[in-house]
Amino acid sequence: MNERLEQQMRFLLEADKSKEIVRQTYLADGSRKENDAEHSWHLALMCAILSEYANEKIDVGRTMAMVLVHDLVEIDAGDTYAYDEAGNADKRQRELAAAERIFRLLPEDQAVWMRGLWDEFEGGTTPEAKFANTLDKIQPVLLNDASGGRSWREHQVEEARILARNVHTPEGSKILWEYARGRIQKNVENGNIRGCQEKADDPFDKKE
Amino acid sequence: MNERLEQQMRFLLEADKSKEIVRQTYLADGSRKENDAEHSWHLALMCAILSEYANEKIDVGRTMAMVLVHDLVEIDAGDTYAYDEAGNADKRQRELAAAERIFRLLPEDQAVWMRGLWDEFEGGTTPEAKFANTLDKIQPVLLNDASGGRSWREHQVEEARILARNVHTPEGSKILWEYARGRIQKNVENGNIRGCQEKADDPFDKKE
Repeated sequence: MNERLEQQMRFLLEADKSKEIVRQTYLADGSRKENDAEHSWHLALMCAILSEYANEKIDVGRTMAMVLVHDLVEIDAGDTYAYDEAGNADKRQRELAAAERIFRLLPEDQAVWMRGLWDEFEGGTTPEAKFANTLDKIQPVLLNDASGGRSWREHQVEEARILARNVHTPEGSKILWEYARGRIQKNVENGNIRGCQEKADDPFDKKE
Repeated sequence: MNERLEQQMRFLLEADKSKEIVRQTYLADGSRKENDAEHSWHLALMCAILSEYANEKIDVGRTMAMVLVHDLVEIDAGDTYAYDEAGNADKRQRELAAAERIFRLLPEDQAVWMRGLWDEFEGGTTPEAKFANTLDKIQPVLLNDASGGRSWREHQVEEARILARNVHTPEGSKILWEYARGRIQKNVENGNIRGCQEKADDPFDKKE
Protein backbone atom coordinates (compact mmCIF):
# COMPACT_ATOMS: atom_id res chain seq x y z
CA MET A 1 0.00 0.00 0.00
CA ASN A 2 1.09 3.54 -0.76
CA GLU A 3 2.09 4.96 2.65
CA ARG A 4 2.20 8.52 1.31
CA LEU A 5 -1.38 8.31 0.06
CA GLU A 6 -2.50 6.73 3.35
CA GLN A 7 -1.00 9.68 5.27
CA GLN A 8 -2.77 12.15 3.00
CA MET A 9 -6.07 10.36 3.43
CA ARG A 10 -5.67 10.28 7.22
CA PHE A 11 -5.12 14.04 7.17
CA LEU A 12 -8.16 14.57 4.93
CA LEU A 13 -10.34 12.51 7.27
CA GLU A 14 -8.98 14.35 10.30
CA ALA A 15 -9.80 17.64 8.55
CA ASP A 16 -13.41 16.44 8.32
CA LYS A 17 -13.75 17.40 11.99
CA SER A 18 -13.71 21.07 10.93
CA LYS A 19 -17.34 20.54 9.96
CA GLU A 20 -18.13 20.23 13.67
CA ILE A 21 -16.26 23.27 14.99
CA VAL A 22 -19.02 25.81 15.48
CA ARG A 23 -18.30 29.54 15.20
CA GLN A 24 -20.23 32.42 16.76
CA THR A 25 -21.40 33.75 13.40
CA TYR A 26 -24.89 32.89 12.16
CA LEU A 27 -25.66 31.93 8.56
CA ALA A 28 -26.98 34.84 6.50
CA ASP A 29 -30.58 33.73 7.19
CA GLY A 30 -29.92 33.52 10.94
CA SER A 31 -31.08 29.88 11.12
CA ARG A 32 -28.00 28.50 12.89
CA LYS A 33 -24.32 29.18 13.50
CA GLU A 34 -21.82 28.30 10.81
CA ASN A 35 -18.90 25.92 11.24
CA ASP A 36 -15.23 26.18 10.27
CA ALA A 37 -15.52 24.13 7.07
CA GLU A 38 -18.38 26.30 5.80
CA HIS A 39 -16.58 29.47 6.83
CA SER A 40 -13.39 28.36 5.06
CA TRP A 41 -15.31 27.47 1.90
CA HIS A 42 -16.93 30.90 1.97
CA LEU A 43 -13.54 32.62 2.35
CA ALA A 44 -12.09 30.65 -0.57
CA LEU A 45 -15.04 31.63 -2.75
CA MET A 46 -14.65 35.26 -1.66
CA CYS A 47 -10.98 35.02 -2.52
CA ALA A 48 -11.85 33.91 -6.07
CA ILE A 49 -14.47 36.63 -6.53
CA LEU A 50 -12.94 39.59 -4.67
CA SER A 51 -9.18 39.28 -5.34
CA GLU A 52 -9.32 42.37 -7.60
CA TYR A 53 -9.70 44.47 -4.42
CA ALA A 54 -6.44 43.32 -2.81
CA ASN A 55 -4.19 46.31 -2.07
CA GLU A 56 -1.23 44.39 -3.49
CA LYS A 57 -1.09 41.80 -6.27
CA ILE A 58 -1.73 38.34 -4.80
CA ASP A 59 -1.36 34.74 -5.93
CA VAL A 60 -5.05 33.78 -5.80
CA GLY A 61 -4.51 30.00 -5.75
CA ARG A 62 -2.07 30.23 -2.86
CA THR A 63 -4.41 32.54 -0.94
CA MET A 64 -7.27 30.10 -1.51
CA ALA A 65 -5.16 27.23 -0.14
CA MET A 66 -4.29 29.42 2.86
CA VAL A 67 -7.91 30.17 3.77
CA LEU A 68 -8.90 26.53 3.25
CA VAL A 69 -6.54 25.46 6.06
CA HIS A 70 -6.39 28.58 8.25
CA ASP A 71 -8.80 27.21 10.87
CA LEU A 72 -7.78 23.52 10.93
CA VAL A 73 -6.01 24.11 14.25
CA GLU A 74 -9.42 24.69 15.82
CA ILE A 75 -10.07 20.93 15.56
CA ASP A 76 -7.95 20.72 18.72
CA ALA A 77 -7.96 24.31 19.98
CA GLY A 78 -11.65 25.07 19.43
CA ASP A 79 -13.10 28.30 18.08
CA THR A 80 -12.20 31.24 20.29
CA TYR A 81 -14.76 34.01 19.98
CA ALA A 82 -13.17 37.28 18.90
CA TYR A 83 -14.32 39.11 22.02
CA ASP A 84 -13.58 36.36 24.56
CA GLU A 85 -10.62 37.80 26.48
CA ALA A 86 -9.91 34.77 28.66
CA GLY A 87 -10.06 32.43 25.67
CA ASN A 88 -7.77 34.66 23.66
CA ALA A 89 -5.12 34.74 26.39
CA ASP A 90 -3.86 31.20 25.67
CA LYS A 91 -5.25 30.85 22.15
CA ARG A 92 -1.85 31.12 20.48
CA GLN A 93 -0.34 28.35 22.60
CA ARG A 94 -3.29 26.00 22.04
CA GLU A 95 -3.22 26.63 18.30
CA LEU A 96 0.53 26.06 18.01
CA ALA A 97 0.18 22.65 19.65
CA ALA A 98 -2.71 21.83 17.31
CA ALA A 99 -0.72 22.87 14.23
CA GLU A 100 2.12 20.65 15.36
CA ARG A 101 -0.18 17.63 15.59
CA ILE A 102 -2.52 18.13 12.64
CA PHE A 103 -0.15 19.16 9.84
CA ARG A 104 2.25 16.39 10.95
CA LEU A 105 -0.31 13.85 9.74
CA LEU A 106 0.75 14.75 6.20
CA PRO A 107 3.86 13.47 4.40
CA GLU A 108 6.86 15.59 5.43
CA ASP A 109 6.94 17.86 2.35
CA GLN A 110 3.25 18.67 2.57
CA ALA A 111 3.39 19.06 6.35
CA VAL A 112 6.05 21.75 5.89
CA TRP A 113 4.07 23.40 3.08
CA MET A 114 0.74 23.48 4.96
CA ARG A 115 2.34 24.53 8.23
CA GLY A 116 4.10 27.30 6.28
CA LEU A 117 0.76 28.49 4.89
CA TRP A 118 -0.74 28.55 8.38
CA ASP A 119 2.28 30.38 9.85
CA GLU A 120 2.08 32.85 6.97
CA PHE A 121 -1.61 33.47 7.66
CA GLU A 122 -0.90 33.96 11.36
CA GLY A 123 2.01 36.30 10.61
CA GLY A 124 -0.14 38.44 8.37
CA THR A 125 2.73 40.19 6.61
CA THR A 126 2.73 38.86 3.00
CA PRO A 127 0.22 40.26 0.48
CA GLU A 128 -1.58 36.89 0.46
CA ALA A 129 -1.73 36.67 4.26
CA LYS A 130 -2.95 40.26 4.55
CA PHE A 131 -5.74 39.63 2.06
CA ALA A 132 -6.67 36.30 3.69
CA ASN A 133 -6.89 38.00 7.09
CA THR A 134 -9.03 40.77 5.61
CA LEU A 135 -11.46 38.19 4.20
CA ASP A 136 -11.48 36.35 7.54
CA LYS A 137 -12.51 39.58 9.28
CA ILE A 138 -15.08 40.90 6.80
CA GLN A 139 -16.94 37.61 6.17
CA PRO A 140 -18.50 37.56 9.66
CA VAL A 141 -19.43 41.23 9.25
CA LEU A 142 -21.34 40.38 6.06
CA LEU A 143 -23.11 37.46 7.73
CA ASN A 144 -23.83 39.34 10.96
CA ASP A 145 -25.30 42.20 8.96
CA ALA A 146 -27.36 39.83 6.77
CA SER A 147 -28.71 37.99 9.84
CA GLY A 148 -29.95 41.21 11.45
CA GLY A 149 -26.95 41.62 13.75
CA ARG A 150 -27.91 38.60 15.84
CA SER A 151 -24.40 37.61 16.94
CA TRP A 152 -23.44 41.22 17.76
CA ARG A 153 -26.58 41.65 19.86
CA GLU A 154 -26.16 38.36 21.69
CA HIS A 155 -22.64 39.31 22.71
CA GLN A 156 -23.44 43.03 23.22
CA VAL A 157 -20.40 43.89 21.15
CA GLU A 158 -19.19 47.50 21.18
CA GLU A 159 -18.17 49.39 18.07
CA ALA A 160 -14.86 50.39 19.65
CA ARG A 161 -13.89 46.75 20.18
CA ILE A 162 -14.81 45.85 16.60
CA LEU A 163 -12.70 48.71 15.31
CA ALA A 164 -9.79 47.79 17.60
CA ARG A 165 -9.94 44.21 16.38
CA ASN A 166 -9.91 45.39 12.77
CA VAL A 167 -6.95 47.72 12.99
CA HIS A 168 -5.04 45.62 10.41
CA THR A 169 -8.03 44.73 8.21
CA PRO A 170 -7.50 47.60 5.72
CA GLU A 171 -3.97 46.27 5.05
CA GLY A 172 -5.33 43.48 2.86
CA SER A 173 -7.94 45.58 1.08
CA LYS A 174 -8.92 49.18 1.78
CA ILE A 175 -12.00 48.81 -0.42
CA LEU A 176 -13.32 45.69 1.30
CA TRP A 177 -12.68 47.18 4.71
CA GLU A 178 -14.58 50.34 3.73
CA TYR A 179 -17.46 48.15 2.62
CA ALA A 180 -17.46 46.27 5.94
CA ARG A 181 -17.06 49.54 7.86
CA GLY A 182 -20.26 50.77 6.23
CA ARG A 183 -22.08 47.65 7.39
CA ILE A 184 -20.75 48.11 10.93
CA GLN A 185 -21.86 51.75 10.92
CA LYS A 186 -25.34 50.75 9.75
CA ASN A 187 -25.58 48.30 12.67
CA VAL A 188 -24.40 50.92 15.14
CA GLU A 189 -27.16 53.19 13.88
CA ASN A 190 -29.86 50.54 14.13
CA GLY A 191 -28.71 49.48 17.60
CA ASN A 192 -27.29 46.02 16.88
CA ILE A 193 -23.80 47.21 17.85
CA ARG A 194 -23.25 49.36 20.91
CA GLY A 195 -21.88 52.65 19.60
CA CYS A 196 -18.79 54.51 20.85
CA GLN A 197 -20.96 57.33 22.16
CA GLU A 198 -23.20 55.19 24.30
CA LYS A 199 -20.91 54.76 27.26
CA ALA A 200 -20.38 58.52 27.63
CA ASP A 201 -24.14 58.99 27.56
CA ASP A 202 -24.63 56.42 30.31
CA PRO A 203 -24.89 58.23 33.69
CA PHE A 204 -23.73 55.12 35.55
CA ASP A 205 -20.38 55.35 33.80
CA LYS A 206 -19.82 58.83 35.25
CA LYS A 207 -20.12 57.78 38.87
CA GLU A 208 -16.55 56.72 39.45
CA MET B 1 -21.77 53.05 -4.20
CA ASN B 2 -19.76 50.56 -6.21
CA GLU B 3 -22.39 48.57 -8.17
CA ARG B 4 -19.86 45.92 -9.16
CA LEU B 5 -18.94 45.22 -5.54
CA GLU B 6 -22.63 45.17 -4.57
CA GLN B 7 -23.30 42.50 -7.22
CA GLN B 8 -20.37 40.43 -5.99
CA MET B 9 -21.58 40.68 -2.39
CA ARG B 10 -25.12 39.68 -3.40
CA PHE B 11 -23.69 36.59 -5.11
CA LEU B 12 -21.58 35.74 -2.05
CA LEU B 13 -24.61 36.03 0.25
CA GLU B 14 -26.71 33.94 -2.14
CA ALA B 15 -23.93 31.32 -2.12
CA ASP B 16 -24.33 31.16 1.67
CA LYS B 17 -27.43 29.02 1.06
CA SER B 18 -25.12 26.15 0.03
CA LYS B 19 -24.59 25.63 3.75
CA GLU B 20 -28.19 24.43 3.95
CA ILE B 21 -28.25 22.01 1.02
CA VAL B 22 -27.93 18.63 2.70
CA ARG B 23 -26.31 15.71 0.90
CA GLN B 24 -26.82 12.00 1.51
CA THR B 25 -23.26 11.48 2.76
CA TYR B 26 -22.59 11.38 6.50
CA LEU B 27 -19.62 13.07 8.13
CA ALA B 28 -16.71 10.72 8.79
CA ASP B 29 -17.93 10.18 12.38
CA GLY B 30 -21.47 9.42 11.18
CA SER B 31 -23.01 12.13 13.40
CA ARG B 32 -25.00 13.89 10.66
CA LYS B 33 -25.14 14.42 6.90
CA GLU B 34 -22.82 16.95 5.33
CA ASN B 35 -23.93 19.94 3.27
CA ASP B 36 -22.76 21.34 -0.05
CA ALA B 37 -20.52 24.05 1.41
CA GLU B 38 -18.71 21.53 3.60
CA HIS B 39 -18.43 19.06 0.74
CA SER B 40 -17.02 21.74 -1.58
CA TRP B 41 -14.49 22.84 1.04
CA HIS B 42 -13.40 19.23 1.44
CA LEU B 43 -12.97 18.80 -2.32
CA ALA B 44 -10.90 21.99 -2.55
CA LEU B 45 -8.65 20.76 0.26
CA MET B 46 -8.35 17.36 -1.44
CA CYS B 47 -7.46 19.15 -4.64
CA ALA B 48 -4.59 20.96 -2.88
CA ILE B 49 -3.32 17.77 -1.20
CA LEU B 50 -3.92 15.14 -3.91
CA SER B 51 -3.21 16.96 -7.19
CA GLU B 52 -0.02 14.92 -7.65
CA TYR B 53 -2.23 11.93 -8.51
CA ALA B 54 -4.00 13.58 -11.46
CA ASN B 55 -3.50 11.54 -14.64
CA GLU B 56 -2.72 14.72 -16.56
CA LYS B 57 -1.05 17.93 -15.40
CA ILE B 58 -3.69 20.27 -13.95
CA ASP B 59 -3.91 23.93 -12.95
CA VAL B 60 -4.55 23.40 -9.23
CA GLY B 61 -5.93 26.90 -8.53
CA ARG B 62 -8.43 26.66 -11.37
CA THR B 63 -9.50 23.19 -10.26
CA MET B 64 -9.98 24.49 -6.71
CA ALA B 65 -12.17 27.33 -8.00
CA MET B 66 -14.15 24.77 -10.02
CA VAL B 67 -14.90 22.51 -7.05
CA LEU B 68 -15.78 25.52 -4.87
CA VAL B 69 -18.66 26.41 -7.22
CA HIS B 70 -19.57 23.03 -8.72
CA ASP B 71 -22.61 22.54 -6.48
CA LEU B 72 -23.94 26.13 -6.27
CA VAL B 73 -26.74 25.19 -8.68
CA GLU B 74 -28.17 22.96 -5.96
CA ILE B 75 -29.30 26.10 -4.11
CA ASP B 76 -32.22 26.04 -6.57
CA ALA B 77 -32.10 22.48 -7.91
CA GLY B 78 -31.49 20.66 -4.63
CA ASP B 79 -29.16 17.73 -4.06
CA THR B 80 -30.10 14.76 -6.21
CA TYR B 81 -28.94 11.51 -4.64
CA ALA B 82 -26.68 9.56 -6.97
CA TYR B 83 -28.98 6.54 -7.01
CA ASP B 84 -32.30 8.41 -7.28
CA GLU B 85 -33.41 7.59 -10.83
CA ALA B 86 -36.51 9.79 -10.92
CA GLY B 87 -34.57 12.75 -9.53
CA ASN B 88 -31.78 12.28 -12.01
CA ALA B 89 -34.17 12.28 -14.97
CA ASP B 90 -34.72 16.06 -14.90
CA LYS B 91 -31.63 17.00 -12.88
CA ARG B 92 -29.81 18.53 -15.85
CA GLN B 93 -32.71 20.80 -16.75
CA ARG B 94 -33.18 22.00 -13.16
CA GLU B 95 -29.48 22.67 -12.77
CA LEU B 96 -29.21 24.60 -16.04
CA ALA B 97 -31.99 26.95 -14.91
CA ALA B 98 -30.25 27.38 -11.56
CA ALA B 99 -26.89 28.16 -13.21
CA GLU B 100 -28.62 30.76 -15.35
CA ARG B 101 -30.02 32.53 -12.29
CA ILE B 102 -27.21 32.19 -9.76
CA PHE B 103 -24.12 33.02 -11.83
CA ARG B 104 -26.03 35.96 -13.37
CA LEU B 105 -25.95 37.66 -9.98
CA LEU B 106 -22.25 38.38 -10.64
CA PRO B 107 -20.87 41.19 -12.82
CA GLU B 108 -20.93 40.06 -16.47
CA ASP B 109 -17.24 39.09 -16.74
CA GLN B 110 -17.34 36.99 -13.57
CA ALA B 111 -20.72 35.49 -14.48
CA VAL B 112 -19.20 34.23 -17.74
CA TRP B 113 -16.10 32.96 -15.94
CA MET B 114 -17.97 31.11 -13.18
CA ARG B 115 -20.57 29.71 -15.58
CA GLY B 116 -17.68 28.54 -17.74
CA LEU B 117 -16.12 26.74 -14.78
CA TRP B 118 -19.42 25.04 -14.02
CA ASP B 119 -19.98 24.05 -17.65
CA GLU B 120 -16.42 22.72 -17.75
CA PHE B 121 -17.04 20.63 -14.63
CA GLU B 122 -20.27 19.29 -16.08
CA GLY B 123 -18.60 18.53 -19.41
CA GLY B 124 -15.84 16.58 -17.69
CA THR B 125 -13.45 16.63 -20.63
CA THR B 126 -10.55 18.93 -19.61
CA PRO B 127 -7.82 17.60 -17.27
CA GLU B 128 -9.09 19.94 -14.51
CA ALA B 129 -12.73 18.87 -14.95
CA LYS B 130 -11.77 15.19 -15.01
CA PHE B 131 -9.81 15.53 -11.78
CA ALA B 132 -12.57 17.61 -10.12
CA ASN B 133 -15.13 14.95 -11.05
CA THR B 134 -12.88 12.23 -9.67
CA LEU B 135 -12.61 14.07 -6.35
CA ASP B 136 -16.38 14.61 -6.32
CA LYS B 137 -16.89 10.86 -6.69
CA ILE B 138 -14.24 9.57 -4.29
CA GLN B 139 -14.92 11.99 -1.40
CA PRO B 140 -18.27 10.37 -0.52
CA VAL B 141 -16.62 6.93 -0.75
CA LEU B 142 -14.04 8.02 1.85
CA LEU B 143 -16.74 9.41 4.14
CA ASN B 144 -19.10 6.48 3.66
CA ASP B 145 -16.29 4.07 4.46
CA ALA B 146 -15.21 6.11 7.51
CA SER B 147 -18.77 6.28 8.85
CA GLY B 148 -19.19 2.49 8.70
CA GLY B 149 -21.02 2.48 5.37
CA ARG B 150 -24.11 4.09 6.86
CA SER B 151 -25.32 5.87 3.71
CA TRP B 152 -24.74 2.78 1.53
CA ARG B 153 -26.70 0.62 3.97
CA GLU B 154 -29.56 3.07 4.30
CA HIS B 155 -29.99 3.17 0.53
CA GLN B 156 -29.17 -0.54 0.02
CA VAL B 157 -26.80 0.45 -2.74
CA GLU B 158 -25.47 -2.29 -5.01
CA GLU B 159 -21.84 -2.58 -6.03
CA ALA B 160 -22.80 -2.78 -9.70
CA ARG B 161 -24.55 0.59 -9.54
CA ILE B 162 -21.59 2.19 -7.79
CA LEU B 163 -19.25 0.85 -10.45
CA ALA B 164 -21.58 1.96 -13.25
CA ARG B 165 -21.73 5.44 -11.78
CA ASN B 166 -17.94 5.57 -11.56
CA VAL B 167 -17.18 4.51 -15.09
CA HIS B 168 -15.43 7.86 -15.75
CA THR B 169 -13.84 8.27 -12.31
CA PRO B 170 -10.46 6.73 -13.30
CA GLU B 171 -10.15 9.38 -16.05
CA GLY B 172 -9.17 12.04 -13.51
CA SER B 173 -6.88 9.83 -11.45
CA LYS B 174 -6.30 6.10 -11.81
CA ILE B 175 -4.53 6.02 -8.44
CA LEU B 176 -7.32 7.74 -6.50
CA TRP B 177 -9.93 5.56 -8.17
CA GLU B 178 -7.96 2.43 -7.24
CA TYR B 179 -7.87 3.68 -3.65
CA ALA B 180 -11.63 4.27 -3.62
CA ARG B 181 -12.23 0.94 -5.37
CA GLY B 182 -10.42 -0.77 -2.50
CA ARG B 183 -12.72 0.95 -0.02
CA ILE B 184 -15.78 -0.11 -1.99
CA GLN B 185 -14.52 -3.71 -2.12
CA LYS B 186 -13.96 -3.69 1.65
CA ASN B 187 -17.56 -2.57 2.16
CA VAL B 188 -18.88 -5.22 -0.19
CA GLU B 189 -17.01 -7.80 1.86
CA ASN B 190 -18.32 -6.54 5.18
CA GLY B 191 -21.88 -6.29 3.85
CA ASN B 192 -22.39 -2.52 3.76
CA ILE B 193 -22.69 -2.62 -0.04
CA ARG B 194 -24.75 -5.30 -1.77
CA GLY B 195 -22.25 -7.25 -3.86
CA CYS B 196 -22.58 -8.20 -7.54
CA GLN B 197 -22.76 -11.88 -6.58
CA GLU B 198 -25.60 -11.53 -4.12
CA LYS B 199 -28.42 -11.43 -6.62
CA ALA B 200 -27.29 -14.63 -8.31
CA ASP B 201 -27.11 -16.31 -4.91
CA ASP B 202 -30.64 -15.19 -4.04
CA PRO B 203 -33.10 -18.02 -4.84
CA PHE B 204 -35.97 -15.55 -5.19
CA ASP B 205 -34.22 -13.98 -8.16
CA LYS B 206 -34.24 -17.30 -10.02
CA LYS B 207 -38.01 -17.71 -9.99
CA GLU B 208 -38.72 -15.76 -13.15
